[in-house]
Amino acid sequence: MHIALDAMGGDHGPQELIAGALLAIDQTDLTILLVGDELVLNKHLSAIPISQQSLERLKVVHAPTAVGMDENPVDAIRKKKDSSIMVAFDLVKTGEASAAVSAGNSGATLAAAVRKLGRLKNVARPGLASIFPTIKGPVVIMDVGANVECRPVHLYQFAVMASGFSRLYHVEKPRVGLLTIGEESGKGNSLVKETYALLKASHLNFIGNVEGRDVFQGDVDVIICDGFVGNIVLKISEGLAEAAMKMLKDEIVKSTMSKIGYLLARPAFKIFKKRVDYAEYGGAPLLGIKGTGIICHGKSSAYAIKNAIIEAMEMERLNINDTITRDLENGISSLAKGV
Amino acid sequence: MHIALDAMGGDHGPQELIAGALLAIDQTDLTILLVGDELVLNKHLSAIPISQQSLERLKVVHAPTAVGMDENPVDAIRKKKDSSIMVAFDLVKTGEASAAVSAGNSGATLAAAVRKLGRLKNVARPGLASIFPTIKGPVVIMDVGANVECRPVHLYQFAVMASGFSRLYHVEKPRVGLLTIGEESGKGNSLVKETYALLKASHLNFIGNVEGRDVFQGDVDVIICDGFVGNIVLKISEGLAEAAMKMLKDEIVKSTMSKIGYLLARPAFKIFKKRVDYAEYGGAPLLGIKGTGIICHGKSSAYAIKNAIIEAMEMERLNINDTITRDLENGISSLAKGV
Repeated sequence: MHIALDAMGGDHGPQELIAGALLAIDQTDLTILLVGDELVLNKHLSAIPISQQSLERLKVVHAPTAVGMDENPVDAIRKKKDSSIMVAFDLVKTGEASAAVSAGNSGATLAAAVRKLGRLKNVARPGLASIFPTIKGPVVIMDVGANVECRPVHLYQFAVMASGFSRLYHVEKPRVGLLTIGEESGKGNSLVKETYALLKASHLNFIGNVEGRDVFQGDVDVIICDGFVGNIVLKISEGLAEAAMKMLKDEIVKSTMSKIGYLLARPAFKIFKKRVDYAEYGGAPLLGIKGTGIICHGKSSAYAIKNAIIEAMEMERLNINDTITRDLENGISSLAKGV
Repeated sequence: MHIALDAMGGDHGPQELIAGALLAIDQTDLTILLVGDELVLNKHLSAIPISQQSLERLKVVHAPTAVGMDENPVDAIRKKKDSSIMVAFDLVKTGEASAAVSAGNSGATLAAAVRKLGRLKNVARPGLASIFPTIKGPVVIMDVGANVECRPVHLYQFAVMASGFSRLYHVEKPRVGLLTIGEESGKGNSLVKETYALLKASHLNFIGNVEGRDVFQGDVDVIICDGFVGNIVLKISEGLAEAAMKMLKDEIVKSTMSKIGYLLARPAFKIFKKRVDYAEYGGAPLLGIKGTGIICHGKSSAYAIKNAIIEAMEMERLNINDTITRDLENGISSLAKGV
């Protein structure tokens, strides 16, 4: 299988992305297409020791331009048709790659994917899912930022798509929850109330409303919300985890005894960090497009990139998009029958 | 000053609330009106050793019924006009108390406050503010759940009210941020975009959009959002903090070395916990009503209740409502002038 990697995106530059590709090659039988400025990429490649065997599975595909992290996504992909992100999704379109992975400008990646590949049948709005760690196992939250204003049917479709995606975590009948501000069915804004009825009538394993406090408890596999709320949830969680760690460390360094204690407990901290680190979960899959696309955090490490590449491979191997398409078809017929 | 305490609300029952009242009496010159079933309350009071001096500043006001935590708020306050929460706000209305504090059913407290006291002049929607700890100092977020669907003018009024409230934290010119999903002015849903223009044109110290990740950085004093988003932010933050602590402890207890390390570092953990504990910040003030009302977490400890009572006292001493009324008047004239 071939996976296209936007080798110009991300905060750490091409070397980190190439390192991620090398890790992925070591752990799989994938071929990675490194998309970007060939001069730059070849220079990086020649600077690191790579076996001939690995080099054969690491191909540079030239893209003369790149979209900057701060560029307006829509403008950027219209003007830069030859940018690494556009070329990466072009490779998926032509079948030269099975999936594309990018840690670059998220909005541009989203726009490029939809523009190049188009939407799956019966999908009104492709969306971004994100995997959150919980006390028990991962939970998939969708949408986390692709669609700022949503209608109930969009949220229903997110539920179908995110349920399909949770096959990646071997969940048989994913429990779907609707994110709102009270557990009773009458609670929430009008979008939530209307969506509740739609999910209740669907074939999905809908367990009802969930509140913010339930997100990290692990008693639900899929949580649905609009992209405005979902993006705030994502950023709040990242921000809180970072701030809490900083505050805790600030206190620990104030006394020698605490510092010694921290050193002794460090292995536990490391395992904890690994359990909650987004890098473990690869990237955020863009669901609802004809193809597979993964959007990674800008500051992704090589390790995170490797996991995102493997995630893309698994999504393809499990034919997640076939599941989604079939479930949307089934959903339409069962909703029509009033089931 | 007299403060009315709903002595029947909360998960821990009257004894915890009475303990909170006693702590408040020790630290202030307040008189606390304990509102609830006098038989129950007097029984609790007689069971604990209290000095005559303290007892004189702890008065029981009889209320024969109480609203349960799971009752429908609007139904409950309509049917139970003699409930502890309704009587507590009645005492504020008649001037027998300067403020009311409740850890009972939040929705009922909100409804009782608005019903009994009415709205301040120029306030379309009273709202709930909450104080969050950050790396630097506290930040006030409003609305955290009173108003699920909002118009831009409501968010503008929340900004004025929360700015007034931040006087409690001695902030001279509170920096106001609008919670959304991108820093540029064009980012967000339509509510946010319209509110942006209103805040920009106002006399407030509006610093622009803030993202979820900025909430805990401490570079903004007041964050504005609708009650749906705000409540999710509140619950997510609580849930994440609890889940992270649980996950970390699960790892620590797995090895003896980690456990010893944790014991050595425990003082640092304790200070950290105190820094982020909601109990330190009292309760959530209900802003925009003619009077002062504080809504506490259902599981508030005596310590949290004490802090909420002191918070109510400070709000009254600083005449926060006068500030809000004056600022709303000024705001209307400056917005009208196109300033």
